[in-house]
Amino acid sequence: MNELDLLKQRLRDFASQRDWEQFHSPKNLSMALIAEAAELVEHFQWLTEEQSSRLTSDKLSEVEQEIADIQIYLVRMADKLGIDVLEAVGKKIAINEKKYPADKVRGSSKKYTEY
Amino acid sequence: MNELDLLKQRLRDFASQRDWEQFHSPKNLSMALIAEAAELVEHFQWLTEEQSSRLTSDKLSEVEQEIADIQIYLVRMADKLGIDVLEAVGKKIAINEKKYPADKVRGSSKKYTEY
Amino acid sequence: MNELDLLKQRLRDFASQRDWEQFHSPKNLSMALIAEAAELVEHFQWLTEEQSSRLTSDKLSEVEQEIADIQIYLVRMADKLGIDVLEAVGKKIAINEKKYPADKVRGSSKKYTEY
Amino acid sequence: MNELDLLKQRLRDFASQRDWEQFHSPKNLSMALIAEAAELVEHFQWLTEEQSSRLTSDKLSEVEQEIADIQIYLVRMADKLGIDVLEAVGKKIAINEKKYPADKVRGSSKKYTEY
Repeated sequence: MNELDLLKQRLRDFASQRDWEQFHSPKNLSMALIAEAAELVEHFQWLTEEQSSRLTSDKLSEVEQEIADIQIYLVRMADKLGIDVLEAVGKKIAINEKKYPADKVRGSSKKYTEY
Repeated sequence: MNELDLLKQRLRDFASQRDWEQFHSPKNLSMALIAEAAELVEHFQWLTEEQSSRLTSDKLSEVEQEIADIQIYLVRMADKLGIDVLEAVGKKIAINEKKYPADKVRGSSKKYTEY
Repeated sequence: MNELDLLKQRLRDFASQRDWEQFHSPKNLSMALIAEAAELVEHFQWLTEEQSSRLTSDKLSEVEQEIADIQIYLVRMADKLGIDVLEAVGKKIAINEKKYPADKVRGSSKKYTEY
Repeated sequence: MNELDLLKQRLRDFASQRDWEQFHSPKNLSMALIAEAAELVEHFQWLTEEQSSRLTSDKLSEVEQEIADIQIYLVRMADKLGIDVLEAVGKKIAINEKKYPADKVRGSSKKYTEY
Protein backbone atom coordinates (compact mmCIF):
# COMPACT_ATOMS: atom_id res chain seq x y z
CA MET A 1 0.00 0.00 0.00
CA ASN A 2 1.53 3.33 -1.04
CA GLU A 3 1.50 6.56 0.96
CA LEU A 4 -1.46 8.13 -0.83
CA ASP A 5 -3.51 4.96 -0.23
CA LEU A 6 -2.64 5.15 3.45
CA LEU A 7 -3.62 8.81 3.48
CA LYS A 8 -6.90 7.98 1.73
CA GLN A 9 -7.71 5.49 4.48
CA ARG A 10 -6.74 7.89 7.23
CA LEU A 11 -8.96 10.64 5.76
CA ARG A 12 -11.87 8.23 5.46
CA ASP A 13 -11.57 7.47 9.15
CA PHE A 14 -11.26 11.16 9.99
CA ALA A 15 -14.45 11.97 8.09
CA SER A 16 -16.50 9.05 9.30
CA GLN A 17 -15.56 9.60 12.96
CA ARG A 18 -16.99 13.11 12.60
CA ASP A 19 -19.99 12.08 10.51
CA TRP A 20 -18.69 14.35 7.77
CA GLU A 21 -19.21 11.97 4.85
CA GLN A 22 -22.58 13.67 4.31
CA PHE A 23 -20.78 16.93 3.40
CA HIS A 24 -18.15 15.33 1.18
CA SER A 25 -19.86 15.22 -2.19
CA PRO A 26 -17.42 15.71 -5.09
CA LYS A 27 -19.14 19.03 -5.77
CA ASN A 28 -18.51 20.28 -2.23
CA LEU A 29 -14.98 18.92 -2.15
CA SER A 30 -14.13 20.74 -5.37
CA MET A 31 -15.20 23.96 -3.65
CA ALA A 32 -13.16 23.21 -0.52
CA LEU A 33 -10.15 22.39 -2.68
CA ILE A 34 -10.28 25.61 -4.67
CA ALA A 35 -10.76 27.63 -1.49
CA GLU A 36 -7.49 26.16 -0.19
CA ALA A 37 -5.76 26.74 -3.52
CA ALA A 38 -6.81 30.37 -3.25
CA GLU A 39 -5.20 30.69 0.17
CA LEU A 40 -1.99 29.65 -1.50
CA VAL A 41 -2.51 32.25 -4.22
CA GLU A 42 -3.20 34.89 -1.60
CA HIS A 43 0.24 34.39 -0.06
CA PHE A 44 1.84 35.18 -3.41
CA GLN A 45 -0.43 37.80 -4.92
CA TRP A 46 1.59 40.92 -4.07
CA LEU A 47 5.01 39.27 -4.21
CA THR A 48 7.29 39.38 -7.20
CA GLU A 49 8.14 35.99 -8.67
CA GLU A 50 11.56 36.31 -7.16
CA GLN A 51 10.17 37.08 -3.69
CA SER A 52 7.86 34.09 -3.97
CA SER A 53 10.96 31.88 -4.11
CA ARG A 54 12.45 33.09 -0.85
CA LEU A 55 9.71 33.19 1.76
CA THR A 56 10.34 33.95 5.41
CA SER A 57 10.11 30.87 7.62
CA ASP A 58 6.76 32.10 9.01
CA LYS A 59 5.27 32.46 5.55
CA LEU A 60 6.77 29.14 4.57
CA SER A 61 4.99 27.27 7.36
CA GLU A 62 1.71 28.92 6.43
CA VAL A 63 2.25 27.88 2.82
CA GLU A 64 3.14 24.39 3.97
CA GLN A 65 -0.26 24.14 5.66
CA GLU A 66 -2.10 25.27 2.54
CA ILE A 67 -0.25 22.68 0.49
CA ALA A 68 -1.26 20.03 3.01
CA ASP A 69 -4.90 21.14 2.83
CA ILE A 70 -4.92 20.90 -0.94
CA GLN A 71 -3.37 17.42 -0.83
CA ILE A 72 -5.95 16.33 1.74
CA TYR A 73 -8.95 17.49 -0.26
CA LEU A 74 -7.47 16.12 -3.47
CA VAL A 75 -7.12 12.63 -2.01
CA ARG A 76 -10.59 12.87 -0.46
CA MET A 77 -12.11 13.91 -3.79
CA ALA A 78 -10.35 11.18 -5.73
CA ASP A 79 -11.48 8.63 -3.16
CA LYS A 80 -15.13 9.69 -3.43
CA LEU A 81 -14.93 9.29 -7.21
CA GLY A 82 -13.00 6.02 -7.15
CA ILE A 83 -10.00 7.58 -8.87
CA ASP A 84 -6.44 6.46 -8.15
CA VAL A 85 -4.40 9.65 -7.99
CA LEU A 86 -1.01 8.16 -8.84
CA GLU A 87 -2.41 6.20 -11.75
CA ALA A 88 -4.13 9.36 -13.00
CA VAL A 89 -0.84 11.23 -12.74
CA GLY A 90 1.01 8.53 -14.67
CA LYS A 91 -1.51 8.72 -17.49
CA LYS A 92 -1.43 12.52 -17.54
CA ILE A 93 2.35 12.70 -17.74
CA ALA A 94 2.23 10.37 -20.75
CA ILE A 95 -0.30 12.70 -22.38
CA ASN A 96 1.83 15.75 -21.57
CA GLU A 97 4.89 14.12 -23.09
CA LYS A 98 3.00 13.83 -26.37
CA LYS A 99 1.47 17.29 -26.19
CA TYR A 100 4.75 18.93 -25.31
CA PRO A 101 7.69 17.21 -27.02
CA ALA A 102 10.86 18.61 -25.47
CA ASP A 103 12.40 19.54 -28.83
CA LYS A 104 9.39 21.52 -29.89
CA VAL A 105 8.47 23.46 -26.80
CA ARG A 106 11.85 24.16 -25.24
CA GLY A 107 11.88 27.49 -23.45
CA SER A 108 8.33 28.39 -24.46
CA SER A 109 5.32 28.66 -22.17
CA LYS A 110 2.69 28.51 -24.90
CA LYS A 111 -0.26 26.17 -24.49
CA TYR A 112 -0.17 23.10 -26.73
CA THR A 113 -3.15 24.47 -28.69
CA GLU A 114 -0.99 27.44 -29.67
CA TYR A 115 1.75 25.44 -31.40
CA MET B 1 11.87 6.75 -1.78
CA ASN B 2 8.09 7.14 -1.72
CA GLU B 3 5.82 7.72 -4.71
CA LEU B 4 5.56 11.48 -4.30
CA ASP B 5 9.35 11.74 -4.16
CA LEU B 6 9.58 9.75 -7.36
CA LEU B 7 6.98 12.01 -8.92
CA LYS B 8 8.89 15.08 -7.75
CA GLN B 9 11.99 13.80 -9.53
CA ARG B 10 10.09 12.94 -12.67
CA LEU B 11 8.55 16.41 -12.82
CA ARG B 12 11.93 18.05 -12.31
CA ASP B 13 13.24 16.15 -15.32
CA PHE B 14 10.16 17.03 -17.35
CA ALA B 15 10.61 20.74 -16.61
CA SER B 16 14.34 20.88 -17.10
CA GLN B 17 14.22 18.98 -20.40
CA ARG B 18 11.87 21.69 -21.67
CA ASP B 19 13.74 24.58 -20.05
CA TRP B 20 10.59 25.38 -18.12
CA GLU B 21 12.20 25.95 -14.73
CA GLN B 22 12.29 29.65 -15.60
CA PHE B 23 8.47 29.73 -15.56
CA HIS B 24 8.04 27.69 -12.39
CA SER B 25 8.23 30.31 -9.68
CA PRO B 26 6.00 29.51 -6.69
CA LYS B 27 3.87 32.50 -7.67
CA ASN B 28 3.28 31.18 -11.18
CA LEU B 29 2.73 27.63 -9.99
CA SER B 30 0.07 28.80 -7.53
CA MET B 31 -1.75 30.35 -10.50
CA ALA B 32 -1.43 27.21 -12.61
CA LEU B 33 -2.66 25.12 -9.72
CA ILE B 34 -5.76 27.20 -9.09
CA ALA B 35 -6.55 27.26 -12.81
CA GLU B 36 -6.60 23.45 -12.74
CA ALA B 37 -8.66 23.42 -9.55
CA ALA B 38 -11.17 25.63 -11.33
CA GLU B 39 -11.48 23.16 -14.20
CA LEU B 40 -12.53 20.64 -11.59
CA VAL B 41 -15.07 23.09 -10.18
CA GLU B 42 -16.37 23.76 -13.67
CA HIS B 43 -17.30 20.10 -14.12
CA PHE B 44 -19.48 20.26 -11.03
CA GLN B 45 -20.93 23.76 -11.12
CA TRP B 46 -24.36 22.97 -12.55
CA LEU B 47 -24.67 19.49 -11.10
CA THR B 48 -26.52 18.68 -7.91
CA GLU B 49 -24.39 17.16 -5.18
CA GLU B 50 -26.00 13.85 -5.91
CA GLN B 51 -25.22 14.09 -9.64
CA SER B 52 -21.61 14.96 -8.80
CA SER B 53 -21.27 11.51 -7.21
CA ARG B 54 -22.31 9.54 -10.27
CA LEU B 55 -20.50 10.97 -13.27
CA THR B 56 -20.65 9.41 -16.70
CA SER B 57 -17.45 7.60 -17.64
CA ASP B 58 -16.56 10.40 -20.08
CA LYS B 59 -16.88 13.06 -17.41
CA LEU B 60 -15.01 10.83 -14.99
CA SER B 61 -11.98 10.60 -17.23
CA GLU B 62 -11.97 14.35 -17.71
CA VAL B 63 -12.15 14.80 -13.95
CA GLU B 64 -9.37 12.26 -13.54
CA GLN B 65 -7.15 14.42 -15.74
CA GLU B 66 -7.88 17.56 -13.71
CA ILE B 67 -7.04 15.70 -10.51
CA ALA B 68 -3.76 14.62 -12.06
CA ASP B 69 -2.96 18.18 -13.10
CA ILE B 70 -3.58 19.47 -9.58
CA GLN B 71 -1.37 16.75 -8.11
CA ILE B 72 1.37 17.57 -10.59
CA TYR B 73 1.41 21.29 -9.86
CA LEU B 74 1.15 20.66 -6.12
CA VAL B 75 4.24 18.45 -6.11
CA ARG B 76 6.08 20.92 -8.35
CA MET B 77 5.20 23.83 -6.05
CA ALA B 78 6.23 21.96 -2.92
CA ASP B 79 9.50 20.99 -4.58
CA LYS B 80 10.32 24.58 -5.52
CA LEU B 81 9.73 25.63 -1.90
CA GLY B 82 11.58 22.68 -0.36
CA ILE B 83 8.40 21.39 1.30
CA ASP B 84 7.80 17.67 1.84
CA VAL B 85 4.12 17.15 0.98
CA LEU B 86 3.55 14.01 3.03
CA GLU B 87 5.26 15.46 6.07
CA ALA B 88 3.14 18.62 5.70
CA VAL B 89 0.01 16.48 5.51
CA GLY B 90 0.98 14.56 8.63
CA LYS B 91 1.43 17.78 10.56
CA LYS B 92 -1.84 19.23 9.25
CA ILE B 93 -3.88 16.18 10.20
CA ALA B 94 -2.50 16.44 13.75
CA ILE B 95 -3.60 20.10 13.82
CA ASN B 96 -7.04 19.21 12.44
CA GLU B 97 -7.49 16.54 15.09
CA LYS B 98 -7.04 19.20 17.76
CA LYS B 99 -9.17 21.79 16.00
CA TYR B 100 -11.97 19.35 15.32
CA PRO B 101 -12.31 16.81 18.15
CA ALA B 102 -14.71 14.12 16.94
CA ASP B 103 -16.99 14.41 19.97
CA LYS B 104 -17.42 18.12 19.56
CA VAL B 105 -17.94 18.53 15.85
CA ARG B 106 -19.84 15.37 14.93
CA GLY B 107 -22.29 16.01 12.12
CA SER B 108 -21.52 19.73 11.93
CA SER B 109 -19.80 21.56 9.08
CA LYS B 110 -18.98 24.70 11.03
CA LYS B 111 -15.49 26.12 10.88
CA TYR B 112 -13.42 25.67 14.05
CA THR B 113 -13.56 29.43 14.66
CA GLU B 114 -17.34 29.13 14.94
CA TYR B 115 -17.38 26.65 17.84
CA MET C 1 -20.22 59.25 -16.47
CA ASN C 2 -21.73 55.96 -15.29
CA GLU C 3 -21.32 54.38 -11.87
CA LEU C 4 -18.56 51.99 -12.87
CA ASP C 5 -16.57 54.86 -14.37
CA LEU C 6 -16.95 56.76 -11.12
CA LEU C 7 -15.84 53.69 -9.21
CA LYS C 8 -12.84 53.31 -11.52
CA GLN C 9 -11.79 56.85 -10.73
CA ARG C 10 -12.29 56.38 -7.01
CA LEU C 11 -10.18 53.23 -6.99
CA ARG C 12 -7.42 54.94 -8.94
CA ASP C 13 -7.28 57.62 -6.27
CA PHE C 14 -7.34 55.02 -3.52
CA ALA C 15 -4.40 53.16 -5.04
CA SER C 16 -2.32 56.20 -5.91
CA GLN C 17 -2.76 57.79 -2.47
CA ARG C 18 -1.27 54.60 -1.03
CA ASP C 19 1.39 54.20 -3.70
CA TRP C 20 -0.14 50.84 -4.55
CA GLU C 21 -0.10 51.20 -8.33
CA GLN C 22 3.24 49.37 -8.27
CA PHE C 23 1.46 46.21 -6.99
CA HIS C 24 -1.49 46.43 -9.37
CA SER C 25 -0.23 44.60 -12.42
CA PRO C 26 -2.98 42.69 -14.24
CA LYS C 27 -1.23 39.48 -13.18
CA ASN C 28 -1.37 40.40 -9.49
CA LEU C 29 -4.92 41.73 -9.72
CA SER C 30 -6.09 38.46 -11.28
CA MET C 31 -4.68 36.69 -8.21
CA ALA C 32 -6.33 39.10 -5.78
CA LEU C 33 -9.61 38.73 -7.63
CA ILE C 34 -9.63 34.95 -7.53
CA ALA C 35 -8.67 34.98 -3.86
CA GLU C 36 -11.79 37.05 -3.18
CA ALA C 37 -13.91 34.81 -5.39
CA ALA C 38 -12.70 31.88 -3.30
CA GLU C 39 -13.85 33.55 -0.09
CA LEU C 40 -17.29 33.63 -1.64
CA VAL C 41 -17.02 29.95 -2.52
CA GLU C 42 -15.90 29.17 1.01
CA HIS C 43 -19.14 30.57 2.45
CA PHE C 44 -21.12 28.13 0.33
CA GLN C 45 -18.96 25.01 0.24
CA TRP C 46 -20.73 22.96 2.89
CA LEU C 47 -24.21 24.38 2.33
CA THR C 48 -26.84 22.73 0.20
CA GLU C 49 -28.00 24.79 -2.77
CA GLU C 50 -31.20 25.48 -0.91
CA GLN C 51 -29.34 26.69 2.20
CA SER C 52 -27.20 28.95 0.02
CA SER C 53 -30.37 30.85 -0.92
CA ARG C 54 -31.40 31.67 2.63
CA LEU C 55 -28.34 32.93 4.49
CA THR C 56 -28.48 34.34 8.00
CA SER C 57 -28.08 38.10 8.10
CA ASP C 58 -24.55 37.70 9.51
CA LYS C 59 -23.49 35.45 6.65
CA LEU C 60 -25.22 37.74 4.21
CA SER C 61 -23.16 40.75 5.27
CA GLU C 62 -19.97 38.74 4.99
CA VAL C 63 -21.01 37.65 1.51
CA GLU C 64 -21.87 41.23 0.64
CA GLN C 65 -18.29 42.23 1.47
CA GLU C 66 -16.83 39.50 -0.72
CA ILE C 67 -19.03 40.61 -3.60
CA ALA C 68 -17.80 44.16 -3.11
CA ASP C 69 -14.17 42.99 -3.11
CA ILE C 70 -14.65 41.13 -6.36
CA GLN C 71 -16.30 44.15 -7.97
CA ILE C 72 -13.47 46.38 -6.79
CA TYR C 73 -10.71 44.18 -8.19
CA LEU C 74 -12.62 43.63 -11.41
CA VAL C 75 -12.92 47.36 -12.07
CA ARG C 76 -9.28 47.86 -11.10
CA MET C 77 -8.14 45.11 -13.47
CA ALA C 78 -10.26 46.39 -16.36
CA ASP C 79 -8.89 49.88 -15.78
CA LYS C 80 -5.28 48.70 -15.88
CA LEU C 81 -5.98 46.97 -19.20
CA GLY C 82 -8.01 49.80 -20.69
CA ILE C 83 -11.14 47.67 -20.87
CA ASP C 84 -14.62 49.15 -20.44
CA VAL C 85 -16.50 46.65 -18.30
CA LEU C 86 -20.02 47.55 -19.38
CA GLU C 87 -19.07 47.53 -23.04
CA ALA C 88 -17.42 44.14 -22.55
CA VAL C 89 -20.57 42.84 -20.89
CA GLY C 90 -22.75 44.10 -23.73
CA LYS C 91 -20.60 42.30 -26.28
CA LYS C 92 -20.54 39.12 -24.22
CA ILE C 93 -24.30 38.99 -23.81
CA ALA C 94 -24.65 39.27 -27.58
CA ILE C 95 -22.26 36.33 -27.96
CA ASN C 96 -24.14 34.32 -25.35
CA GLU C 97 -27.43 34.94 -27.10
CA LYS C 98 -25.99 33.32 -30.22
CA LYS C 99 -24.32 30.48 -28.36
CA TYR C 100 -27.38 29.71 -26.30
CA PRO C 101 -30.58 30.34 -28.30
CA ALA C 102 -33.47 30.14 -25.83
CA ASP C 103 -35.38 27.58 -27.90
CA LYS C 104 -32.46 25.22 -28.07
CA VAL C 105 -31.09 25.26 -24.55
CA ARG C 106 -34.23 25.68 -22.47
CA GLY C 107 -33.91 23.89 -19.14
CA SER C 108 -30.48 22.45 -19.96
CA SER C 109 -27.20 23.37 -18.27
CA LYS C 110 -24.94 21.89 -20.92
CA LYS C 111 -22.06 23.92 -22.27
CA TYR C 112 -22.52 25.25 -25.79
CA THR C 113 -19.78 22.91 -27.02
CA GLU C 114 -21.93 19.98 -25.93
CA TYR C 115 -24.95 20.83 -28.07
CA MET D 1 -31.95 53.11 -12.66
CA ASN D 2 -28.19 52.67 -12.88
CA GLU D 3 -26.30 50.47 -15.34
CA LEU D 4 -25.83 47.55 -12.97
CA ASP D 5 -29.56 47.53 -12.21
CA LEU D 6 -30.27 47.44 -15.93
CA LEU D 7 -27.80 44.60 -16.31
CA LYS D 8 -29.43 42.75 -13.42
CA GLN D 9 -32.78 42.97 -15.19
CA ARG D 10 -31.33 41.89 -18.50
CA LEU D 11 -29.68 38.85 -16.92
CA ARG D 12 -32.91 37.89 -15.17
CA ASP D 13 -34.65 37.86 -18.52
CA PHE D 14 -31.83 35.90 -20.10
CA ALA D 15 -32.03 33.23 -17.40
CA SER D 16 -35.79 32.98 -17.25
CA GLN D 17 -36.17 32.75 -21.04
CA ARG D 18 -33.88 29.71 -20.88
CA ASP D 19 -35.43 28.25 -17.73
CA TRP D 20 -32.04 28.54 -16.09
CA GLU D 21 -33.18 30.00 -12.78
CA GLN D 22 -33.23 26.44 -11.45
CA PHE D 23 -29.43 26.23 -11.85
CA HIS D 24 -28.69 29.67 -10.42
CA SER D 25 -28.43 28.98 -6.71
CA PRO D 26 -25.86 31.22 -4.99
CA LYS D 27 -23.78 28.09 -4.40
CA ASN D 28 -23.69 27.24 -8.10
CA LEU D 29 -23.13 30.83 -9.15
CA SER D 30 -20.12 31.10 -6.82
CA MET D 31 -18.64 28.13 -8.65
CA ALA D 32 -19.34 29.58 -12.08
CA LEU D 33 -17.83 32.88 -10.99
CA ILE D 34 -14.60 31.36 -9.72
CA ALA D 35 -14.30 29.24 -12.85
CA GLU D 36 -14.38 32.44 -14.89
CA ALA D 37 -11.92 34.15 -12.55
CA ALA D 38 -9.58 31.23 -13.12
CA GLU D 39 -9.75 31.69 -16.89
CA LEU D 40 -8.47 35.19 -16.27
CA VAL D 41 -5.67 33.82 -14.07
CA GLU D 42 -4.80 31.30 -16.76
CA HIS D 43 -4.10 34.06 -19.26
CA PHE D 44 -1.52 35.54 -16.90
CA GLN D 45 0.04 32.51 -15.23
CA TRP D 46 3.22 32.26 -17.28
CA LEU D 47 3.58 35.96 -18.04
CA THR D 48 5.78 38.31 -16.09
CA GLU D 49 3.97 41.17 -14.40
CA GLU D 50 5.34 43.46 -17.03
CA GLN D 51 4.10 41.25 -19.87
CA SER D 52 0.67 41.12 -18.25
CA SER D 53 0.41 44.89 -18.78
CA ARG D 54 0.98 44.79 -22.52
CA LEU D 55 -1.15 42.03 -23.99
CA THR D 56 -1.51 41.44 -27.70
CA SER D 57 -4.86 42.54 -29.07
CA ASP D 58 -5.95 38.90 -29.41
CA LYS D 59 -5.18 38.16 -25.79
CA LEU D 60 -6.82 41.40 -24.78
CA SER D 61 -10.13 40.47 -26.37
CA GLU D 62 -10.05 37.10 -24.70
CA VAL D 63 -9.37 38.78 -21.37
CA GLU D 64 -12.17 41.23 -22.07
CA GLN D 65 -14.57 38.31 -22.40
CA GLU D 66 -13.46 36.78 -19.10
CA ILE D 67 -13.96 40.12 -17.38
CA ALA D 68 -17.45 40.30 -18.84
CA ASP D 69 -18.24 36.78 -17.62
CA ILE D 70 -17.13 37.62 -14.10
CA GLN D 71 -19.24 40.78 -14.09
CA ILE D 72 -22.24 38.84 -15.35
CA TYR D 73 -22.04 36.15 -12.69
CA LEU D 74 -21.34 38.70 -9.99
CA VAL D 75 -24.48 40.67 -10.80
CA ARG D 76 -26.50 37.45 -11.06
CA MET D 77 -25.21 36.25 -7.68
CA ALA D 78 -25.92 39.58 -5.98
CA ASP D 79 -29.41 39.59 -7.46
CA LYS D 80 -30.20 36.12 -6.16
CA LEU D 81 -29.12 37.22 -2.68
CA GLY D 82 -30.85 40.60 -2.79
CA ILE D 83 -27.55 42.45 -2.55
CA ASP D 84 -27.02 45.83 -4.22
CA VAL D 85 -23.51 45.66 -5.68
CA LEU D 86 -22.79 49.38 -5.79
CA GLU D 87 -24.03 49.91 -2.25
CA ALA D 88 -21.88 46.99 -1.11
CA VAL D 89 -18.87 48.54 -2.84
CA GLY D 90 -19.50 51.91 -1.19
CA LYS D 91 -19.58 50.29 2.24
CA LYS D 92 -16.46 48.25 1.52
CA ILE D 93 -14.43 51.23 0.37
CA ALA D 94 -15.32 53.01 3.62
CA ILE D 95 -14.09 49.95 5.55
CA ASN D 96 -10.90 49.80 3.49
CA GLU D 97 -10.21 53.47 4.14
CA LYS D 98 -10.21 52.73 7.87
CA LYS D 99 -8.22 49.52 7.57
CA TYR D 100 -5.63 51.07 5.30
CA PRO D 101 -5.03 54.73 6.19
CA ALA D 102 -2.91 56.21 3.40
CA ASP D 103 -0.27 57.55 5.78
CA LYS D 104 0.27 54.21 7.43
CA VAL D 105 0.31 51.81 4.51
CA ARG D 106 1.95 53.88 1.79
CA GLY D 107 4.03 51.69 -0.49
CA SER D 108 3.41 48.53 1.49
CA SER D 109 1.39 45.51 0.36
CA LYS D 110 0.97 43.97 3.81
CA LYS D 111 -2.47 42.83 4.92
CA TYR D 112 -4.13 45.04 7.55
CA THR D 113 -3.75 42.23 10.11
CA GLU D 114 0.02 42.49 9.67
CA TYR D 115 0.34 46.15 10.69
